[in-house]
Amino acid sequence: MKYLLLFLLFMAVPAFAAEFSTDCLNCHQQDAANRQLQQSAHAGLLSCADCHGEDHKSENVARRYVSAEVCGGCHEKQLEEHRNSRHGLGLHAGWGCTRSMPDRNKGECRFCHQKGDTLPISTVQCARFIKQSSEMGQIGCNRCHMIENSCGSCHGNHMTSAKIVQDPMVCAKCHMGPDHPQWEAWKTSQHGTMFNSLGAPSAPDCQSCHMPTGSHNISAGLTAPPSGQPYAAVKAAAQRQKMLDICQQCHARGFAARDLKNADAVRLQTLALVDEARRIIRDLDDRGLLDPPPQTRLAHPQRGQKLVLDGTMLYEDISHIESLFFRLSKYAAAKTFKGAFHQNPDYTHWYGNAEVKLLLNDIRGEASRLRERGSQKRTETAPSEAGLDEKALEVLQKRHERGELSDADYAEKKRQVLEQILQ
Amino acid sequence: MKYLLLFLLFMAVPAFAAEFSTDCLNCHQQDAANRQLQQSAHAGLLSCADCHGEDHKSENVARRYVSAEVCGGCHEKQLEEHRNSRHGLGLHAGWGCTRSMPDRNKGECRFCHQKGDTLPISTVQCARFIKQSSEMGQIGCNRCHMIENSCGSCHGNHMTSAKIVQDPMVCAKCHMGPDHPQWEAWKTSQHGTMFNSLGAPSAPDCQSCHMPTGSHNISAGLTAPPSGQPYAAVKAAAQRQKMLDICQQCHARGFAARDLKNADAVRLQTLALVDEARRIIRDLDDRGLLDPPPQTRLAHPQRGQKLVLDGTMLYEDISHIESLFFRLSKYAAAKTFKGAFHQNPDYTHWYGNAEVKLLLNDIRGEASRLRERGSQKRTETAPSEAGLDEKALEVLQKRHERGELSDADYAEKKRQVLEQILQ
Amino acid sequence: MKYLLLFLLFMAVPAFAAEFSTDCLNCHQQDAANRQLQQSAHAGLLSCADCHGEDHKSENVARRYVSAEVCGGCHEKQLEEHRNSRHGLGLHAGWGCTRSMPDRNKGECRFCHQKGDTLPISTVQCARFIKQSSEMGQIGCNRCHMIENSCGSCHGNHMTSAKIVQDPMVCAKCHMGPDHPQWEAWKTSQHGTMFNSLGAPSAPDCQSCHMPTGSHNISAGLTAPPSGQPYAAVKAAAQRQKMLDICQQCHARGFAARDLKNADAVRLQTLALVDEARRIIRDLDDRGLLDPPPQTRLAHPQRGQKLVLDGTMLYEDISHIESLFFRLSKYAAAKTFKGAFHQNPDYTHWYGNAEVKLLLNDIRGEASRLRERGSQKRTETAPSEAGLDEKALEVLQKRHERGELSDADYAEKKRQVLEQILQ
Repeated sequence: MKYLLLFLLFMAVPAFAAEFSTDCLNCHQQDAANRQLQQSAHAGLLSCADCHGEDHKSENVARRYVSAEVCGGCHEKQLEEHRNSRHGLGLHAGWGCTRSMPDRNKGECRFCHQKGDTLPISTVQCARFIKQSSEMGQIGCNRCHMIENSCGSCHGNHMTSAKIVQDPMVCAKCHMGPDHPQWEAWKTSQHGTMFNSLGAPSAPDCQSCHMPTGSHNISAGLTAPPSGQPYAAVKAAAQRQKMLDICQQCHARGFAARDLKNADAVRLQTLALVDEARRIIRDLDDRGLLDPPPQTRLAHPQRGQKLVLDGTMLYEDISHIESLFFRLSKYAAAKTFKGAFHQNPDYTHWYGNAEVKLLLNDIRGEASRLRERGSQKRTETAPSEAGLDEKALEVLQKRHERGELSDADYAEKKRQVLEQILQ
Repeated sequence: MKYLLLFLLFMAVPAFAAEFSTDCLNCHQQDAANRQLQQSAHAGLLSCADCHGEDHKSENVARRYVSAEVCGGCHEKQLEEHRNSRHGLGLHAGWGCTRSMPDRNKGECRFCHQKGDTLPISTVQCARFIKQSSEMGQIGCNRCHMIENSCGSCHGNHMTSAKIVQDPMVCAKCHMGPDHPQWEAWKTSQHGTMFNSLGAPSAPDCQSCHMPTGSHNISAGLTAPPSGQPYAAVKAAAQRQKMLDICQQCHARGFAARDLKNADAVRLQTLALVDEARRIIRDLDDRGLLDPPPQTRLAHPQRGQKLVLDGTMLYEDISHIESLFFRLSKYAAAKTFKGAFHQNPDYTHWYGNAEVKLLLNDIRGEASRLRERGSQKRTETAPSEAGLDEKALEVLQKRHERGELSDADYAEKKRQVLEQILQ
Repeated sequence: MKYLLLFLLFMAVPAFAAEFSTDCLNCHQQDAANRQLQQSAHAGLLSCADCHGEDHKSENVARRYVSAEVCGGCHEKQLEEHRNSRHGLGLHAGWGCTRSMPDRNKGECRFCHQKGDTLPISTVQCARFIKQSSEMGQIGCNRCHMIENSCGSCHGNHMTSAKIVQDPMVCAKCHMGPDHPQWEAWKTSQHGTMFNSLGAPSAPDCQSCHMPTGSHNISAGLTAPPSGQPYAAVKAAAQRQKMLDICQQCHARGFAARDLKNADAVRLQTLALVDEARRIIRDLDDRGLLDPPPQTRLAHPQRGQKLVLDGTMLYEDISHIESLFFRLSKYAAAKTFKGAFHQNPDYTHWYGNAEVKLLLNDIRGEASRLRERGSQKRTETAPSEAGLDEKALEVLQKRHERGELSDADYAEKKRQVLEQILQ
């Protein structure tokens, strides 16, 4: 019964303590689940047992929770497409969030770790949280991050009406909010406003571009993967052509190509601004000026007590300037380029670019304060001239180790510092 | 004529200087209000005078403004249900907002105070503002906070179409925004997205869960009261069962019960984070480190020149760290648990929990700055060792007075401080 | 071919390298553009060449991009109304945003400057950005700021369906977001929620009030111009009467007049709060306390290296306290009064007024920190008593120059400072 939690989360079927009778409906005739099934496209085609099995005591979580594999028994092509898309990635990482809670559910370890292994399974992106509760994991994280193994995420569990999944709002539930507002960006773009007036197929919705011909591989045509590591040029170019095949249904191919190329440029320009902010904070950390410093904080599950400013950054127990950076990189930068790829001026500029630049102002201001505070402290503890230069040498060494300074640049800059001492 | 203001606010009827003629329509035939009435369900059933009375000079504000009592003359059951719900609470507190304005409207005192009484009427929650204008009170506050006595808030004044009040968007006007985005949370939850695709009754809207069988007691089934003071366990349990009766129409009762129990847990976990932030700021105040300190600011209408961080907190003329706390407790924390009770992962997590934790980072950073600033000032004014310890004793005393330290803990901690002096 | 960029931006027609054949359809029969045209109201009435001309090599950008003038050939009245409205203003200022980029497109200068002139053309509001890329200009800025010369902004290019422009969502694409959320404010106001339930004409949408009788002068009835400089009283009064003519279709004129007058008051009260924040920051600048000071930053394209806090304020490379002011004045203050004019309590109060006041707290806190930092620095450099007073005299002089102090007040305050020296 150890996987019961998962089962209970999303199922509209009561927990049962006895074995199934051969006819489930003897007890479950009046259940909402049965009523929904009888009104669905599956009515007359499927019995309860076809999906859930017949054994109340079974440990077979796939049938209790009705995993994607069960649906794939009939919908084979759709399951394969789904698994090949980024919807099929191991997004369940959120389960790992309970890591450092004293009352965490031990059974949840398996979502990130193989038995006896302290490193996460390679297909798991990262445990994003260090102090997340099991309940938040269920409501706040895995209501979305269950999709790799749950067709019901989009289709619903027993209703499975085509109307639900043909409505672009079905995507809104997860693809919204501060971190990736694709739904809001589409809805208020010219595409979305025309969809509101004319409907499909005159104007495109989520499905038109990301599920053309009904394919469940929603990643076809995407050139920027979620990991942040760009696709190889050949793959990216092929993906782009797939998307342009769709754009061409309404636009001249050349026009659409230039529009998406502009969005590519906006993405790179935005990442450069993120990098500028990141360098400011790394430099503060090199000098020991973060407040509090990473060395005194809860350990990052993958990196330990170190500054983490990449895609696996956490938002808990970090310093104020890192908090600003989280908003800049995870929220504002994401809005900028997701807005651009969805042709939305307001998300690209006001929610995106303007916010990136305002936050960069704030980060620079806070960095100035922290540097001044650092220099005051040095004055108070009256360091020698040599002491100051030792600090400078240490910072250069750290930058060299990170690969920010080439061997030649490192040698040259070290020489400059040493010359200052000699003067 | 002193209540004319109220009347004019929401009525589509011109001010009149003479007594009504027996037949209002002699003058008001062409009024928009009359046209709307004639197209409403009340057409042929009600004359102008039935609701507004017959006297142009009347001081009877209930009839000029057409208060809920007037409608209750026919719709008795609905009025009673409404009055018993939190919609019936004295939410008109916003009127008190003009308290310290030199040009405030004296007639507005009566909304919070009985004649001659400086304390607010007990049914009034609190005057939230200290420097709010009469105009902001009308447009910004009481466009919503008039509901206890205005059926027109939801139904409209003369149209009173059933279509208006059967549409969940009728609730959006007030139940939206940074402080309680119930409408947005529902709309982008699986409930809301399915409602978009399938409509009622296949998917639930505001009315399905909060006005089942058309009841006007919209508080049935709610376990967390607006005051922040939890219901007694027996009442809360009874309320929960009422809600589960509704959930059960579509879900297994056990599933729904566990889902709402998870939301209960998320609420308590969130309140604990709010409390952590509150303690940091109280401690700063105990040490006199807030900038500016409450003792130099405009007085809170109920508490005077003291730090207020509970439900009656104001957002005007407070220090930066309190400003951060206001956003944390009033906006982000509220989104977290309102999001959870509405089954919305994005409001629960990204707009809610993540924001609570980011703001907590910001509060800790600002507290660190203020403490450092405080210790610099102490160094400048060169206090004796004893002086520092006196401060520590003072802080302990304040915490004891607030009930944060038990008698025993207070004695023990005091002993420790005194021992340090003796060393 | 130098204006090709503009053309390519919004046209669903491929770039062509040869002259048009007399019959465009020999090549373009299967183009999406042609299909859309054939399904539009223009089908059978217009050929490709009627709008685009017949010459592939032509420099006639008006026909390649199909500027408003081309449409105006038939739709003369609509073009004139459009040009007389604020939609007809030179909003293309965004093109100037590439000013300081090393790889800017030189051809873009003409959008702000006449040949050989370094000052912007008077009808151009301002180049808002100093470091904006051409791509951001295209996607983020001019997707909206093209409206003065593009009927396609609203009508679409080849579809031109009446359904598109009769839907209030057509306005959403541009009139949304942090800086002017008119669409969101309307949509969640009582007007918008009733529109959702009842549709037009029972409830008003954007077009009902801003394009009555189908006029393309969307500025009729507006009393607050975009420049921030109020209309003369006579013009403002006439504009108001135009709006009340529309309100009167559903409301008593007196009721509507008072409601809009309240919004006028809210606007002035809000501008007073903006002014309070502006004075705090100007005073810091007078004392040289901004970090970094304007004198060390990239020059504002119109004002040079000076503090700019009016409508032409930029958001790039400014100090943290100015960043806070940008959010206060451009976002929160705008929401307050745009919310009020659209009768939306949540935008007026929570997104507007409350945010203005929270940001004012933050600005005061940051100003306190900067002043304290300034006084520490002065202490470190050990200035004479006279030195401090000289600073005070300098600040008075700057305020006098800006017109904040009258001649008499300046003389009086100067006398007070000098007396302090003599004591």
